[in-house]
Amino acid sequence: MSERLVVIGADAAGMSAASQARRLRSPEELEIVAFERGHFTSYSACGIPYWVGGDVDTRDELIARTPQEHRARSIDLRMRTEVVQLDVEGRRVRARDLETGEESWTAYDKLVIATGARPVRPELPGIDAVGVHGVQTLDDGQALLDTLRHTRGDRAVVVGAGYIGVEMAEALTNRGYRVTVVNRGPRPMSTLDPDMGALVGDAMVGMGLEMVNDAEVTKILTDDDGRVRAVATDAAEYPADVVVLGIGVRPNTDLARAAGLPLGEHGGLLTDLAMRVRGHDNVWAGGDCVEVLDLVSGRERHIALGTHANKHGQIIGSGVGGDYGTFPGVVGTAVSKVCDLEIARTGLREKDARAAGLQYVTATIESTSRAGYFPGAAPMTVKMLAERRTGRLLGVQIVGREGAAKRVDIAAVALTARMTVDQLTALDLGYAPPFSPVWDPVLNAARKAVTAVRKAG
Amino acid sequence: MSERLVVIGADAAGMSAASQARRLRSPEELEIVAFERGHFTSYSACGIPYWVGGDVDTRDELIARTPQEHRARSIDLRMRTEVVQLDVEGRRVRARDLETGEESWTAYDKLVIATGARPVRPELPGIDAVGVHGVQTLDDGQALLDTLRHTRGDRAVVVGAGYIGVEMAEALTNRGYRVTVVNRGPRPMSTLDPDMGALVGDAMVGMGLEMVNDAEVTKILTDDDGRVRAVATDAAEYPADVVVLGIGVRPNTDLARAAGLPLGEHGGLLTDLAMRVRGHDNVWAGGDCVEVLDLVSGRERHIALGTHANKHGQIIGSGVGGDYGTFPGVVGTAVSKVCDLEIARTGLREKDARAAGLQYVTATIESTSRAGYFPGAAPMTVKMLAERRTGRLLGVQIVGREGAAKRVDIAAVALTARMTVDQLTALDLGYAPPFSPVWDPVLNAARKAVTAVRKAG
Repeated sequence: MSERLVVIGADAAGMSAASQARRLRSPEELEIVAFERGHFTSYSACGIPYWVGGDVDTRDELIARTPQEHRARSIDLRMRTEVVQLDVEGRRVRARDLETGEESWTAYDKLVIATGARPVRPELPGIDAVGVHGVQTLDDGQALLDTLRHTRGDRAVVVGAGYIGVEMAEALTNRGYRVTVVNRGPRPMSTLDPDMGALVGDAMVGMGLEMVNDAEVTKILTDDDGRVRAVATDAAEYPADVVVLGIGVRPNTDLARAAGLPLGEHGGLLTDLAMRVRGHDNVWAGGDCVEVLDLVSGRERHIALGTHANKHGQIIGSGVGGDYGTFPGVVGTAVSKVCDLEIARTGLREKDARAAGLQYVTATIESTSRAGYFPGAAPMTVKMLAERRTGRLLGVQIVGREGAAKRVDIAAVALTARMTVDQLTALDLGYAPPFSPVWDPVLNAARKAVTAVRKAG
Repeated sequence: MSERLVVIGADAAGMSAASQARRLRSPEELEIVAFERGHFTSYSACGIPYWVGGDVDTRDELIARTPQEHRARSIDLRMRTEVVQLDVEGRRVRARDLETGEESWTAYDKLVIATGARPVRPELPGIDAVGVHGVQTLDDGQALLDTLRHTRGDRAVVVGAGYIGVEMAEALTNRGYRVTVVNRGPRPMSTLDPDMGALVGDAMVGMGLEMVNDAEVTKILTDDDGRVRAVATDAAEYPADVVVLGIGVRPNTDLARAAGLPLGEHGGLLTDLAMRVRGHDNVWAGGDCVEVLDLVSGRERHIALGTHANKHGQIIGSGVGGDYGTFPGVVGTAVSKVCDLEIARTGLREKDARAAGLQYVTATIESTSRAGYFPGAAPMTVKMLAERRTGRLLGVQIVGREGAAKRVDIAAVALTARMTVDQLTALDLGYAPPFSPVWDPVLNAARKAVTAVRKAG
């Protein structure tokens, strides 16, 4: 007896799920229909800043699998078709062809919701001006590149100083723009503690970027033909030939909300460990539209990141196909770079620990990526949080140069294993002069954290 | 009441122990006497190949702390003085001044044995010829560099293709030598499985190194004035203006053996978790002269590596000083490079697993250091071993280019935490296109290993 799977959203989570389900179930056993409102499938949204910046030559390089490739695997993929209504009771979705405007209902036995996230777009005067761009989708990236090709000036303003903001600041710098980053907070990278964010801010200024902190954008100023000409805050105006919004994203869950599906405090869908929407055995959800369990704090979070989306898709596809898998949760690892500065974090910041009711100590050390005497040894700062009394590792943040970011993986595994900082000090990590000082920076931070735990009593 | 600590050997383990003991105990509480037969203290032996190769300019850069610096911290350091007898019963050591030949006894309350390792030096005709060098100590490195400065030819033979052998092959290449590596085994890097070692061999040949495998050196040929001119095997002669022995090391434990202290099957001292020599509450040992517990196999191993020596010293110094610390063991992590090829391993090889009575599956994948579309994405091969049935991770080997080696740390932490490969697939590792594909290579290997475990049943 054939079943029908409907997938809403044909990027990482949705199409990983569809592909995995197809691996497990033949077209005779499982019909798969996927709806995608955009022009592209299965692409690396995380790669967009590098395409804009010129590190990646063509859009196609970011596309892991095209609509044609999906169709060749017997997935009925309907591009430029947006699901506008979800009838959970009736097990059907209503979809609109965005080219023709035609709408129709499609019934499902199993449903995967992978509607992703959408960028925060503040309600500002001038926000829709020509030359103001988000960078959430490949379509967005293409539109921005088109603008850059036709813009004569060299002034760019990036609004927001999180991952997307700093990556876009690098991209526009690489394109020859003089970049101003306008940031609401007192320093960039609010995903780091203030002391570590300050290191990023200093480095960005050192790279020639103009950092404007504590600045709320009040409007976008335009010229007579509707093109952006400046970004205004309460205090000043910043000339801009192009503006990139990198303020962050929210789960795109209007459809789910309207259908009465359970959403968490961050607006994302809530699932069980098998990525089924809670209370709905035949509905799965994954990727940027869901909340995930933070294994360190025990709380739900919203994290839009391709690596999670791919894992979700894999697990959902296994479940849909009758196999078994779970997504146990995250520890909050994220790495990024701005020019040659590497930025990484995992686990809890100080404010996260406080919010979770945890008492903690911190330890911050300076070290190098290689033995100090080895050519190319680059400085890095490692900050570590450990729980008071137990010494359990709670989080690590790293800011440095080459070789800094991926060291956070050591802490990510240790957090998953609920290790103490004392256990960390004994870790048998790879050592040779071209790769590490004799005490890896993460071990050095752990040694200092052990002392801090003992002192705190 | 003042006590006296005697330390035998003033390199990483010994002087880390002395320094940590001094931090905890004042000179009034604890007198510290350290004997060192060589000319140097506290140096990075691991850095010698890079000094020989020219990456590191001067010998002094490899020295973390000089005799003068140790003495300034009230450590009575006796250089060029060799301990020639250890009287455990009488709690005293007999030391010989290598300059004057004078000998005297020194009593101790507490003893630290940190006599290191010594290179394997086969009993071959011509082994003592001018131009034949080991590279175990700074003195060795200096002697080799002196030879290189006065040698006219450009032919070098490296005997041995383990870590030291391949690093020295790189060093001599960097110095402009045509290098032949003569290797007893069928491929280089016997610390890897044969399939992974073969990748290293292929890469070395690709770099222009001459690799001679399955070749037992039978003699060193010299010219009339006693200088090396070739290395001979049963099958051929390899012209050599300089020969470097990189065959491996053994624990330097003659003194301990003569004193009746307990040695393991690899000839290293056996200690308890606090690094006290078994059965001797006032004698500690650490660094290259001890055996360490392999946490994966449950067996003792001998691993000569500066990072372990430093940890041992820290723990010994804590114990001597009345504080507390233990060394739980190792998982067998090692990283190395030869030119731009990175080599890493942790945990068990196939033969180790078999010897430990473990049944296992393997999974090998090809991936890249960055997102495939990102500039500089470098290929790497990851091999993973997992226990049959339980799926417990047993080992990982990686051969690749930039960004490959330190990924082994992920597996090192996971081995320590006794994770299964299934648990590995869910790890929240740092992802961004400049740093990793969306599935980190280690995760990809884990996914394939999960499938292999299921298939094996």
